[in-house]
Amino acid sequence: MIQLYDTKLSGNCYKVRLMLSLLGLEYKCVPIALNKGEHKTEEFLKLNPLGQLPVLRDGDVVIRDAQAILVYLARRYGSEEWLPTQAEPMSRVMQWLSVAANEIQHGVAAVRKHFLLNAEIDLEQAQKKAHQTLQILDKHLSKRLWLECVDAERLAARHHPTIADVACFPYVALAPDGKISLEPYPHVVGWIERIKQLPGYVDMSGV
Amino acid sequence: MIQLYDTKLSGNCYKVRLMLSLLGLEYKCVPIALNKGEHKTEEFLKLNPLGQLPVLRDGDVVIRDAQAILVYLARRYGSEEWLPTQAEPMSRVMQWLSVAANEIQHGVAAVRKHFLLNAEIDLEQAQKKAHQTLQILDKHLSKRLWLECVDAERLAARHHPTIADVACFPYVALAPDGKISLEPYPHVVGWIERIKQLPGYVDMSGV
Repeated sequence: MIQLYDTKLSGNCYKVRLMLSLLGLEYKCVPIALNKGEHKTEEFLKLNPLGQLPVLRDGDVVIRDAQAILVYLARRYGSEEWLPTQAEPMSRVMQWLSVAANEIQHGVAAVRKHFLLNAEIDLEQAQKKAHQTLQILDKHLSKRLWLECVDAERLAARHHPTIADVACFPYVALAPDGKISLEPYPHVVGWIERIKQLPGYVDMSGV
Repeated sequence: MIQLYDTKLSGNCYKVRLMLSLLGLEYKCVPIALNKGEHKTEEFLKLNPLGQLPVLRDGDVVIRDAQAILVYLARRYGSEEWLPTQAEPMSRVMQWLSVAANEIQHGVAAVRKHFLLNAEIDLEQAQKKAHQTLQILDKHLSKRLWLECVDAERLAARHHPTIADVACFPYVALAPDGKISLEPYPHVVGWIERIKQLPGYVDMSGV
């Protein structure tokens, strides 16, 4: 069975739990206690030399990094709808995986970490980046149901989110944990609500 | 013809120029002067709302973000060797695209930006992250020619780099611009030398 090395509060772990649930996959959580330094033990560093969560184990395959795990799950268990393989639509999805790994991580996610876990950061800079990114997302989502559409023709027939949405959703939806209101971003709020309506959606606590 | 919105000093732009050259593709550079704010004009923000370089235009296709552009070029003009599409090898490559977008960007690249362009950063933290990442890369490369091998069986017959190498190479190779010596990282130095031997390799100045 798939194993997920996981910690409850992490939005990066949550995005993998969400994807597993959206794909209807069974898995077992292996809880890693960050406050006990379990992510820095010799044993864990063999799984992920970066000492970060999440890590996914599927048989002999071990993948670290939330975005890479989404790619793995989409390609292994999902369909082209979650991650198209043609050059243009695939790279359009990739654009948002980079935003999730960079702008979101160092914006909304960093601010949340500061307020929840007293992480030492340049708060003002992270808040600025958070709002810049939310503005960009809001404008982008004003004309779209999902961050990237798989294919314009298929879109006419059926709307489907991609792993771009799953990658960006958690820390954006959790922005209020960092005292960032989403009220000025109505299209982001609408997109969050659409994700919550997806079959298989689970929230951070697994409900 | 492919157009690359480009600025000479950026390692992210350079990684796209390098990939274009490795694939033997012709393209035209559109220089964008960051010091004149040309990346924040209304016209440019239509191409990339994040106001960042590089941006690639190929006919009607416009892709932003260096990592996403590498994915586009590999899928559109490259082979599975540059970016495999099966679940495991693709996600292994993805792991390093995230490292390029996050750890390398906020480590070696940030330190370089500080020393070359007086960027205001938390220098100590960025230097720490730079060395942590270089240590991880060095250990990883002590057993490998390239960051990820396309396929164990094919590896026996032929070694080939992937876009993981192209994504991580520029800012690592440019670490000395940020007064970070690569001397303590001999396997990283060996990997840099192997990349420099690739057919089609160009350095930052295009030579």
